[in-house]
Amino acid sequence: MPAQSPLFTDLYQLTMMQGYWHHGLHAQEAVFDLYFRKLPFQGGFAVWAGLEPALEGLEGLRFSEDDLAYLEELGQFRPAFLDALRGWRFSGRVTAFREGSVVFPHEPLLTVHALLWEAQLVETALLNTLNFQTLVATKAARCVLAAESSRYGGQVVEFGARRAQGPDGSLSAARAAFVGGAVGTSNVEAGRLYGLPVSGTHAHAWVESFPDELTAFRAYAELYPDSTVLLLDTVDTLRSGLPNALTVARELRERGHELRGVRLDSGDLAYLSCRVRGALDEAGFPEVKIVASNDLSESVIASIIAEGGRIDTYGVGTQLVTAGGEGGGALGGVFKLAALDGVPKMKLTGEPRKSSLPGAKAVWRAVEADGSYALDALTLGEAPRPGDRVSDPTNPLRFSRLPGGLTWRPAREVVMEGGRRTLAPEGLPDLQARARADLARLPAGTRRMLNPHLYRVGLADDVAALRDRVAEELRGHIQP
Amino acid sequence: MPAQSPLFTDLYQLTMMQGYWHHGLHAQEAVFDLYFRKLPFQGGFAVWAGLEPALEGLEGLRFSEDDLAYLEELGQFRPAFLDALRGWRFSGRVTAFREGSVVFPHEPLLTVHALLWEAQLVETALLNTLNFQTLVATKAARCVLAAESSRYGGQVVEFGARRAQGPDGSLSAARAAFVGGAVGTSNVEAGRLYGLPVSGTHAHAWVESFPDELTAFRAYAELYPDSTVLLLDTVDTLRSGLPNALTVARELRERGHELRGVRLDSGDLAYLSCRVRGALDEAGFPEVKIVASNDLSESVIASIIAEGGRIDTYGVGTQLVTAGGEGGGALGGVFKLAALDGVPKMKLTGEPRKSSLPGAKAVWRAVEADGSYALDALTLGEAPRPGDRVSDPTNPLRFSRLPGGLTWRPAREVVMEGGRRTLAPEGLPDLQARARADLARLPAGTRRMLNPHLYRVGLADDVAALRDRVAEELRGHIQP
Repeated sequence: MPAQSPLFTDLYQLTMMQGYWHHGLHAQEAVFDLYFRKLPFQGGFAVWAGLEPALEGLEGLRFSEDDLAYLEELGQFRPAFLDALRGWRFSGRVTAFREGSVVFPHEPLLTVHALLWEAQLVETALLNTLNFQTLVATKAARCVLAAESSRYGGQVVEFGARRAQGPDGSLSAARAAFVGGAVGTSNVEAGRLYGLPVSGTHAHAWVESFPDELTAFRAYAELYPDSTVLLLDTVDTLRSGLPNALTVARELRERGHELRGVRLDSGDLAYLSCRVRGALDEAGFPEVKIVASNDLSESVIASIIAEGGRIDTYGVGTQLVTAGGEGGGALGGVFKLAALDGVPKMKLTGEPRKSSLPGAKAVWRAVEADGSYALDALTLGEAPRPGDRVSDPTNPLRFSRLPGGLTWRPAREVVMEGGRRTLAPEGLPDLQARARADLARLPAGTRRMLNPHLYRVGLADDVAALRDRVAEELRGHIQP
Repeated sequence: MPAQSPLFTDLYQLTMMQGYWHHGLHAQEAVFDLYFRKLPFQGGFAVWAGLEPALEGLEGLRFSEDDLAYLEELGQFRPAFLDALRGWRFSGRVTAFREGSVVFPHEPLLTVHALLWEAQLVETALLNTLNFQTLVATKAARCVLAAESSRYGGQVVEFGARRAQGPDGSLSAARAAFVGGAVGTSNVEAGRLYGLPVSGTHAHAWVESFPDELTAFRAYAELYPDSTVLLLDTVDTLRSGLPNALTVARELRERGHELRGVRLDSGDLAYLSCRVRGALDEAGFPEVKIVASNDLSESVIASIIAEGGRIDTYGVGTQLVTAGGEGGGALGGVFKLAALDGVPKMKLTGEPRKSSLPGAKAVWRAVEADGSYALDALTLGEAPRPGDRVSDPTNPLRFSRLPGGLTWRPAREVVMEGGRRTLAPEGLPDLQARARADLARLPAGTRRMLNPHLYRVGLADDVAALRDRVAEELRGHIQP
């Protein structure tokens, strides 16, 4: 996998590595935090995904002789440094949220404690994996929440291979979509790689390859008597596809089988699904499912349901695997130095919102008596206590006192030590179950699609004071 | 590469393959067209990219024993069919635009003539590769056009690995961005895989790893005396980064070297670049380049230039590799059956804009006397002639007569025959050069970022008449 080549990194990571090494700084103990500043899709939560492949990647990272030969060709690397990369491996500690957890802006989702040059190298691949998978898992969770809001229920299948951003944009999206709650994928390779359920229907070309639609439907049902889902719109959904599908459903039943479903792929899906549901029910086929596709997204799903649409399975493609929509496309996760040999570090930059939070921080999650999540807080170590003050990460003027009655739990745990995983690999169904359970524990308004309630992440006074002190020291270097 | 596994496909392609085979239809001669209906980014052109890897993928496609074993596990495939897949290879003909060409909606960009079951299988992987690479090459071309619109010139480097959609979302985006005109990438693995120039600067962490910024700058310049680009904004761009960079530039010159550049990564890039340019020029460093990054896109680049910004190199990341922005994220390319054993085929669907064009079509490009491109036309074979009528693919009421004085050239050529490439592999610099030359031949208004002139693609009367006839036949199957 390209992701596990140490060359899957930005060139500057390698030139900085050589620089640290050359200046004898490479073995300093660094702390880097991975976090994002803004929730995707203008939503109220994110579903943390990609940790398992990220840890797998870290554990296996080695420079091969081919890698070193290519670096030598670039002409910027000295032989002694390239020798030092021989036998290099990642030996750090990783503290992180468990995959599938709901997470929020400004809290460190993953912290690397490692030698400076190790931590620097892995930034690009960690961000690549975790940004994208978190983004897609979040999108999937939004689609699933929308689908499940129907009183008839509804599920989501990932159908995006053909519009995904490259082969891996499809494969890792299928994985992340499953973490976020999708029940399966159409991509067979993703099914094999990740053990996901694969599913599918047939295409328009199938119908066009037969003299007429009914013959095509019969031919498919003959071969797949227990798993046929018929695509209705090659000619006309209501006036050709539907009556032909009913004919085949009756014929299948005579042979002791049942039609699995029908698929709508164009037109007014809310209207058509009601008409098709009505016709299927009336003809005695209430168990035949309706699958829909055609540029679906959480907002399209929600609007279909709001209009009374009767879709059972949403095949979500482009919008899911490319995480489209307002505030989508990319999660802006970053990886920032927080401490070096015990000294807290930060960057100021020209935009206050892009400053980082110095120090090795602990992340705490407060749980209400009924099990729901109340807020998260960052401290320099100890759990927050009632009456402690927490402030908004981007606006120190917004602060509040912590109430009592909350149970504070460490939100993260050590998942890798000495470059070896300490957390046993978790299966995808477990990750999906965690995401589902975590989403259920969020304040309801936080799950809203638009203008959600914003879950609070607060800085304890020790974190805020450290930030202010380090910023002040840095400003001392600014010329008047 | 996962893309070259035949399992990188939607499950339904495989169930349909088995269906065609089971019903003895698999060896019919099929014609499938790959095309898109809408230009990305609300723009006036697309740059066709991904053909080389797509052909490589087709040529190497085989079912391994592992592939077959996994399919068997799925329980939907019969032993005799799986046996038939042993030794299967793609044996079709492919006709396509050369990679790097400018292309437009509704024209077949690539046509597969192959046995029905072969053509069906390869749909997903072809679309995955060609949709994404065309999208990114187009985005890159837009960024490069914007950068070059400055009277001082400007170039684009791809910096997006950490925000790309998975590892391959980064690697193939780096490749496609180069086709579209980017001069290089920050991703070392992409550099190795595709032979692209790699480049980079340093990160904030570098500065924070030293007692102060000046020491950090000096340490970097000591190691890379001829390739140092200093990041100015860790503390304060104008009041710390810039004066420290000037100190290092002077010290380098005393040692017989020159500072390569400085990088701006936050704040008002138009304003800061003018201030930095002025200071560098005044201090005797007119050759020191200014690199900028920070969520750039073609519209941000254009606005920086409109305000007089003085940036030499734009490091474009997220927006380039994820092809962000209005009408971005995914190119909606499709792959539709056009003929089967010589019989023209089409789908009607519930939305007229989603109907396909039946028949094996030729694509022609009209060139003006001055070498610029005038319009494209689809016919059933012969070149268009002056006075012929061409109509809009989506609106038959819009038509015109072709003028004289145009030279009509076939826009595509046969690039694969019998499953073997007939077009020798082309190097990426050649593809980039083709894109550049083709863009220069477009009517100027077509290159405009917003509300561009829409380049015309017309249907000759033979194509339009065939569509109308086949649609009429299909409608004959609709129940009254």
